[in-house]
Formats: sequence, C-alpha cells, structure tokens
Amino acid sequence: MFAPVYLDWNATTPLDEAVREAMLPWLGMRFGNASSRHEYGRQARAAIDEARARVAAAVGAHPTEVVFTSGGSEANNLFIKGAAALLKPGTVAVSAVEHPCVREPARQLRRNGWLFEEIAVDAEGRVEGSALTAVLSHKPALCSVMLANNETGVLQDVPALAARVRGVGGWFHTDGVQALGKVPVRFRELGVHALTVSAHKIGGPLGAGALVVDKRLELAPLIAGGGQERGLRSGTENVAAIVGFGVACEQALARIEARKAEAACTLKTLRDALEADLIEAGASVFSRGAPRLDNTCFFAIEGVDGETLVARLDRAGFAIASGSACSSASPEPSHTLLAMGVPAALARSAVRVSLGHRTTADEVQRFATALLQQVNELKQLTAMAV
Amino acid sequence: MFAPVYLDWNATTPLDEAVREAMLPWLGMRFGNASSRHEYGRQARAAIDEARARVAAAVGAHPTEVVFTSGGSEANNLFIKGAAALLKPGTVAVSAVEHPCVREPARQLRRNGWLFEEIAVDAEGRVEGSALTAVLSHKPALCSVMLANNETGVLQDVPALAARVRGVGGWFHTDGVQALGKVPVRFRELGVHALTVSAHKIGGPLGAGALVVDKRLELAPLIAGGGQERGLRSGTENVAAIVGFGVACEQALARIEARKAEAACTLKTLRDALEADLIEAGASVFSRGAPRLDNTCFFAIEGVDGETLVARLDRAGFAIASGSACSSASPEPSHTLLAMGVPAALARSAVRVSLGHRTTADEVQRFATALLQQVNELKQLTAMAV
Repeated sequence: MFAPVYLDWNATTPLDEAVREAMLPWLGMRFGNASSRHEYGRQARAAIDEARARVAAAVGAHPTEVVFTSGGSEANNLFIKGAAALLKPGTVAVSAVEHPCVREPARQLRRNGWLFEEIAVDAEGRVEGSALTAVLSHKPALCSVMLANNETGVLQDVPALAARVRGVGGWFHTDGVQALGKVPVRFRELGVHALTVSAHKIGGPLGAGALVVDKRLELAPLIAGGGQERGLRSGTENVAAIVGFGVACEQALARIEARKAEAACTLKTLRDALEADLIEAGASVFSRGAPRLDNTCFFAIEGVDGETLVARLDRAGFAIASGSACSSASPEPSHTLLAMGVPAALARSAVRVSLGHRTTADEVQRFATALLQQVNELKQLTAMAV
Repeated sequence: MFAPVYLDWNATTPLDEAVREAMLPWLGMRFGNASSRHEYGRQARAAIDEARARVAAAVGAHPTEVVFTSGGSEANNLFIKGAAALLKPGTVAVSAVEHPCVREPARQLRRNGWLFEEIAVDAEGRVEGSALTAVLSHKPALCSVMLANNETGVLQDVPALAARVRGVGGWFHTDGVQALGKVPVRFRELGVHALTVSAHKIGGPLGAGALVVDKRLELAPLIAGGGQERGLRSGTENVAAIVGFGVACEQALARIEARKAEAACTLKTLRDALEADLIEAGASVFSRGAPRLDNTCFFAIEGVDGETLVARLDRAGFAIASGSACSSASPEPSHTLLAMGVPAALARSAVRVSLGHRTTADEVQRFATALLQQVNELKQLTAMAV
C-alpha cells in the first residue's frame, strides 16, 4: 500500500502496536457482555476495570471518576447537556475557540432558556482574564474552556480560569482531548469539575473516550437504559476499545516521560525548524507567541488558498489539514482564527501540520521542500492569471 | 484458555471470522479521520460508505437512511429523545416489554411535559390489539414496539401496529436489535419510521449500531458537534467497528439464507429438543404459544432460584443468563415477565438460554444434562432445608 507521509496527528493517530496487541484477544477468543454473570461476562468486566484504572492513573483521577463514552464528542455533550438537564436555566459560557462538540451543545441550551456566552480570546488565541471577568458578572452555572486547541495547539491557563469560575459557584469543564499525551494532564491540579479525554488522539482506537467527573456533580445521562457506567452511560461496553484506551494511556504517559529525557530531536525541534522555513517563505504562523503544543504548526501564506495547498500536497504524498478535520465538511474559514481576529481572507489560507511520535526529521524535511515547491507553483499560476 | 459453552447469544456474540478479517486493517496500516481531506481520510470515508451500503441492504433501506451510532442503546435514545426535542409535548407510548434503553428515555420525557403510556402485552408477551386501541385514543406522537424481545424472543406484529399508529399521525419506531440476523428485517415492509439495529448481536463488533430513519422525520442529535452523519450524530466515526458491522450484516443475511436451505439441525430443532427436556423436568417455558425467535428459550423451574442456577451452571462450564444481561445489575425480577402477568416468585426463577450459529447439538445435549443435574441437587438441598 502506498503510504503518504502522515502529518495530521491532531485529526487522528495510527494505533500503537501495544494497543493493538491488547485489543486483539477481545476481537477473537475473548468476548462477552460485561453485564453477564458468567465467566465471559466477568472477564469482560475485569478488563474494563483494569482499563478504567489505567485511564484514571493517566489523568491523576480515581477510577470511580471515569465514565467511559464512545469518544470525546459524546463526553463533551454528556457534560454540557447532562449538567444542564438537572439545573435551572442560567448562563453557559464557553471560550470562543472551543471545538464544535462543546460549542454546539452549549448553544443549543438556548432552546431551553439558557443564556449562551462566548469568552473572547486575544490575538494569540488565549482566553483573556478580562474577558472571563465580563462573563463572570453573569455568574455562569456552566463553563467550558479547552486545555489545548485542536487547530493552533494553544494551551489555556485552566487552573486559573477554573478557580475563578468555582469562585462564583459555577461548574467548570475542560476538553482535554488534544492535550492528553502531549502535556501532563492532572485532574486534581486542574481544579476542574469535569475533563474530557479520547483514545484515538493518543494512539488508541476510535470508539473510546471518557468524561472524568467529580462525583459531587449531578449529571443526567445522554444515553439511558441498562444503567452501565453508574447510570451515566447506558449501552453494552465496547470492551476492545476500552482495553485499547487503557493501554494507549500508559503508552502516551511513557512517551511523555521518555521525551523529557532526550535532549535533541524532540517534536518541538522538528516543528520549530519547519516554522523557520515557513516564515522565511513569508508564512504567518498562528499563536507563535502563546504557550502551545510542541507538535502543532498552524500557518497561512497570503494569497495561497489553504484547501488548494492541502489537495496539492495530498497528491504529492503528504497528509495535512486545512483547519480542523472536524469541520472539514464546512467551507467556512476557521472559527478559531476568526475569534483571534485573523482576517477571513488570511484564515482561508490556513493549513495545519501536526506531528506525532513516529514523525521523522527526514519526513519534515521532505515536507518542507514539497510545500515550498507547491507554494511557488501556486504563486506563479496566480501571477500568470493576473 | 478454558472456554465454557456459550449459550448467551442474545447478550452478545463472538466476532465472525470474516468480520475480524475486515476490521484488522483498520486497526493497523489503515487509519484516518473520515473527515480529513487527504488519502487516509478518503479511504476511511470510502470504507464507511461501503459499510453503510451493506447495512442498508441488510434491512432493505437506502444508504442515506442509515445513521451510524455507537450501538443499539444510543440509536434507541436518539430516536426517542431526538424526535421529542423537536415536537410539542404529547404522548409517548412504548410496549410494556421494551428494553430499558427504550423505556427509560421515554419515561424521562415526562420531565418535559410528555405523557408516558405503556402498551400492555398478553400472557405470552404479545402486544394486544385492544391495548393499542386504548393508547391510540391519546393520539401518541411517538410510539415504539420492539420487533423481537431480548428475553422471551417473542416477535410482535410490527407492520400492523405501525399502520395503526401512522393512522393517527404518530411516528413509529421499532427496536430490531434482537431480530436482525435471526428473522428477515425489511425497513419498508415494516412500515416504520425508524428502526434500530446493532452489530454485536449478529457477529459484529461492540461499538457500532444504527438508526435507520425515514428522512422526513426530523430529529435533533444527541451528540452535536462536527456534524457527521448528516448532522444527526457528531463524533469521529469508528471506522473499524462500522466496517465490521457492514460485513456482519452480509454474513448474517447469508446465514439466514443458508438456514432456509438446510432441513434438519436448525437452531429451532436444538431449542425445541432442549425445551422438551425442560418441560419433562417440570419447567415453565415462557411465550411458547407465541411466534418467537428460534434461538431463544426462556424458562423457570418453580422453587429453583434463577440466579443460583446460573451461578452453578457457570461453575459447571455453561454460560447462560438470568433475565437479560442488560439489567443483570438489578435484582428485580424480569420486567418483561411481570408485564406478562407471571407471578414475581416464578419470575425470580427465570433463566434464558440463547443459541447461536456455532452452537452444536452436542453442546445443547451436555447443557441439558448439566442443567437437570443442578436442578436435582438444588431441589434436594431445598428438601433437606425444609
């Protein structure tokens, strides 16, 4: 099989070999409904318990705080809709750069009489303290600000934001889907009431995520029925995916530790070298002035359409993204960039490159060469057309 | 690995070999977010499209009518909650023998001002025409009656029920999770607006199900966000599970066809032989007088506790269920049996045996022998205690 160079790790990741090995028995000899009271069921239950402990350990939570879901989108919806269902309508506040699976359920609460507020970000994509102050005057009952943005990679100061929202009696949630496995994520130290994580962004399978949730927080389930996951998420548990999620958490933590030890060729070094080339070629790199994920590079070259560049690089054997994959169906420029005050024309040029632990210096080098070649060709075409 | 005889196919099924083969590449070399606009993403999208066509073909629907979910519970909740969210509060009617993942979301609509009605069943577990007549006077906006019951295996006359509910302008949904792969399930011929199916009951993986839905029916998504599945189910698609679901549908259909051809040793023959033994031993077999699934035997032996019998047979190497696995966490007697008017004491003795395509005559024979031995031992213990 022809395998293009994969530089879109923020969209999804290849499965870790250890994850695959752990999952395979559950797609073969081992099977069983974890609610069944026989040997097959008990083994499935034990495997889920073990995975729950692993996921909890990866985020510094107690296993009983982990509610498995089918993924990050479901976990985010579970927090927003599940908390709102048991509260009187009030204010829900989310940052202006949230993923649609936080923003949309929050906006939809307006149907039920809620006030929806967006918390503004600065030009680098960081939530401003003053913007939060404005929102706090509404005493939000629910607030959600992501740990790391999927497009820019920008990290928010969640502990500080959460403390302020707690101060006015609100529940604070953070979407940690892009942060897990890239930076340390500690549930208690974040001081949040709920945290979303997902398997397929950290070398685990599609089909597993979790809401890590303070047990004092009352939630209505999105999916009611058999009462699995302490009544918070009914449905026969996806044992193979949950087992894979547990092992992926262990692997991701181990890699963070290993990366601390190595001095030279980290993801950051590769990313920074790429950005140096891009800047030399006249690119604007977004959020460079903010703390952000080491693996993410979000940039635009004026006059070069992002979609066109991605399509050309795809044909040249490189897989990258224009904006986030999650909204690739939409031709709109990145919501995140618009919130940062980037002009729509430049936002339409945006391209995201996200590296992973298997990315090599050679791949990044070849990519930079191919990219600059495509940009030159596109500029020549434009010049000829004028 | 010690492998007990598995006679709990209604709880979950082992993965078909062909399903496993189809899934493995998606847990290895092939990966990608189906929303990504590069080679990896396009391949994932193509695989999902192919699976969608297979699932649609299995139920006689159009591929655009198939909305993939994480499983049957989610699909049932999506119909009940998703339809109710866009309607004025009215009456929701569900049969008295529905799975909790239909009954619970329907009951919860009472919070939003809905009237919740249960449609009574007769002593065999069939929905009575007269019971539906009583409910129709409320002109239910939403109605759900399952195709085949998970515990008794009883089949309902869904086309007739759906036609009557349509007649008063209601939306009709049927949970086909236990029916698919065991009896023909044809979306159009059923005359329903929506149909739930699930992969892991037909030799497919956990983590995939679908709501097959008439496009004239407006639904609000349970999970909002990136807008996958025509906006009805956001979240990165679980490609491996969806691919497996597609192949499982093909396999299940092929088996139904093959079964028609063979004369002798069908599941029904095995099940009927078992029931003859059970009746000789004094067991009550539930729903024997109703049309029901060939693979299912739900019975009780007076004075023999169901849980105890299941636990003893588990130790003897046979995996069966006491009531449905989905509510095994609950010590309550089967809701289905109580709705049929079975006394609570007898319902507590209930045990379910469900066969599958790998079940052999020898396994059923050995099981019958072990069962009768355990029953005799338990009766002797009881006699000694008295």
